[in-house]
Amino acid sequence: MSLIVQKFGGSSVANAERVFNVADIITKAYSQDNDIVVVVSAQGDTTDDLIAKAKEINGDASKREMDMLLTAGEQISASLLAMAIEKMGYPVVSLLGWQAGFHTSSAYGSARIKRVVPDRIKKELDKKNIVIVTGFQGLNRYNDMTTLGRGGSDTSAVAIAAVMNADLCQIFTDVEGVFTADPRKVKNARKLDVISYDEMLELASLGAQVLNNRSVEMAKKYGIELEVLSSMTRKPGTIVKEAKKMEKMLISGIARDDDVARVSIIGVPDKPGLAFRIFSKLSAKNINVDLILQSVGRNGTKDISFTISQANLKDTIEILNPYVELIGATNVVYDDKVAKVSIVGAGMETHPGIAAQMFEALYEADINIQMIATSEIKISVLIKRDDADKAVSAIHNKFFSETEPINP
Amino acid sequence: MSLIVQKFGGSSVANAERVFNVADIITKAYSQDNDIVVVVSAQGDTTDDLIAKAKEINGDASKREMDMLLTAGEQISASLLAMAIEKMGYPVVSLLGWQAGFHTSSAYGSARIKRVVPDRIKKELDKKNIVIVTGFQGLNRYNDMTTLGRGGSDTSAVAIAAVMNADLCQIFTDVEGVFTADPRKVKNARKLDVISYDEMLELASLGAQVLNNRSVEMAKKYGIELEVLSSMTRKPGTIVKEAKKMEKMLISGIARDDDVARVSIIGVPDKPGLAFRIFSKLSAKNINVDLILQSVGRNGTKDISFTISQANLKDTIEILNPYVELIGATNVVYDDKVAKVSIVGAGMETHPGIAAQMFEALYEADINIQMIATSEIKISVLIKRDDADKAVSAIHNKFFSETEPINP
Repeated sequence: MSLIVQKFGGSSVANAERVFNVADIITKAYSQDNDIVVVVSAQGDTTDDLIAKAKEINGDASKREMDMLLTAGEQISASLLAMAIEKMGYPVVSLLGWQAGFHTSSAYGSARIKRVVPDRIKKELDKKNIVIVTGFQGLNRYNDMTTLGRGGSDTSAVAIAAVMNADLCQIFTDVEGVFTADPRKVKNARKLDVISYDEMLELASLGAQVLNNRSVEMAKKYGIELEVLSSMTRKPGTIVKEAKKMEKMLISGIARDDDVARVSIIGVPDKPGLAFRIFSKLSAKNINVDLILQSVGRNGTKDISFTISQANLKDTIEILNPYVELIGATNVVYDDKVAKVSIVGAGMETHPGIAAQMFEALYEADINIQMIATSEIKISVLIKRDDADKAVSAIHNKFFSETEPINP
Repeated sequence: MSLIVQKFGGSSVANAERVFNVADIITKAYSQDNDIVVVVSAQGDTTDDLIAKAKEINGDASKREMDMLLTAGEQISASLLAMAIEKMGYPVVSLLGWQAGFHTSSAYGSARIKRVVPDRIKKELDKKNIVIVTGFQGLNRYNDMTTLGRGGSDTSAVAIAAVMNADLCQIFTDVEGVFTADPRKVKNARKLDVISYDEMLELASLGAQVLNNRSVEMAKKYGIELEVLSSMTRKPGTIVKEAKKMEKMLISGIARDDDVARVSIIGVPDKPGLAFRIFSKLSAKNINVDLILQSVGRNGTKDISFTISQANLKDTIEILNPYVELIGATNVVYDDKVAKVSIVGAGMETHPGIAAQMFEALYEADINIQMIATSEIKISVLIKRDDADKAVSAIHNKFFSETEPINP
């Protein structure tokens, strides 16, 4: 008997027919003598619909009340999925995040899981129940509902797999696995059979939108093997596991992230510590800064540019405007029409020249690079969003089509 | 400073505009230096929509999962109402039933409130927050979500008022108060300024649908004065309080209940205890039996007829069919095309002849009476549902229009 954690995204349970499709996947795994814990997201557009309802009333609602509102979405999908499994004649129980033992930090809208106490889950498994858990949510120390932020259901699933030492954690989604590039945009993109945690982590954090990066971090930390696969086609997907277990590919994928905005503080006086203080102010408001570029400006001042997610743009400008005046900088400008395109590959560490090839591809496609960031296994560039499709194709052709033809 | 509990039904918060109307009522009361606890139902048709979603998947879903599903409705309306109050610039917090301390019995779908531990409500009031509580729900001893059944939000409101010793409990609804008959059906129906708990109790339990009967029982037990009023017109409503404080009206109102089905067990052998055992079997399944009629049948057997709510009809027949065979009765028949029409009035106790007048009205309208039940302050008759409109009008004319013309 194995313990399998299965996570189903919103599109996998978008309507009654799909709920039964998912129930079929679950009950088939259960029938093969496995303990099954299922983590489910809100149905289809439910979360967006709830956000629209909130915006109609208050475009600036508190995050606490937003979390109270949004957690209802998974509650609905979890109970409906349980009803479908009941209908098929299997024993099942649905649990809310807090019933399943999810304790989180108090940061509404982007809470972190502090611990999972799976007593209730274990009790229900002992009773031979299939256990459905609402993803994306938990309870903070004030006994208030919190959400884990975008893609949080993946993290919920991996957290359960980690704390219960599951044999497998399957992330069912609407794509068949991890691809070398977005298959909807790049026609010769190929599915990877295996990818390392680190590569997946870079791809996830770079906007590949297949897996939430926190879930991959957690899977890496606890050594949980993940499988990303489609609930529709049910073909084998992509396994995410430890790098040492696989051959290193030169480049495993190309990712594009449109949820990015560039902010520049112009004319920052050249005093030590000012940049640090700017970023600590943003960090205190839970605003993550990604790419950072510091350049020399006029009169011995500096310009500091950085990228953030679009959702944080308004807050960032509001925080920075008074501060810019205080430190004697000139002004703050921003550009929300940018995109980040990145290549990821564990082989990069040992193969210099990858960056040069990437820049060559962009140069040949006549695309201007605004910012660059690199790590051991990735290179990211910030470009105009209008150029992003062209950039991804050009880079994919450079690394995949030219060197490894699809039909050899 | 007073503590006011305000309850708003689903139609009062059906859309964004109405949510702001309700937020205006709440904040006006708060601005007059009152502590405010608000109990809110699910918006408009939300509960029905969720039930439809469930039926699409499983027409016979477990009550536990139904409660898990349905409690999401109040969670959505409570957070949206809180957001509207935030928008108006007032401090507010929404709480789920369990956060507000509602502990219930474990009977999913029709749980009873066992106790309310309002620690969190008090803490939030101390912080000067307006407190919004999801009605209709609580947590049972298994730590599972329960619902209180139809009209349960009224009960939630009165329970908070009782446990916190509130100065006033206002039940806002879509009618202006308690009327002598359904004002949508009887054109000269009149609003009552005051009604006693007992009269209201009979009217509520008889289908007047203004107040849930459990809420009135609880208000009576704890001496909580209720006001039933409209969130739309904001005119003074009907006060529900102790009878001794008011003049007794001969008849205070006429109620009609369509949610009723008649079940008859034909040919029950004349042995002591059989009837009791039938009703205890139903009671064990939380099925409430209302009117009961036992009549002599053929060959020394008896026919036992009783009424139940429509929702319990299927379960009742399933329970009775095998039992009927076991005890040697002939068969079970039912009629779900009936209605119960009742008159209520504290004056009945001292005025014999009310029943005769009621039956006369029905006789004059050519309406056949199937069953009769009486108490100190009410008389109920079961009739064909098609006759119910005519019956209510005939009785209303007999007791109100004839003796007290509307335009004297």
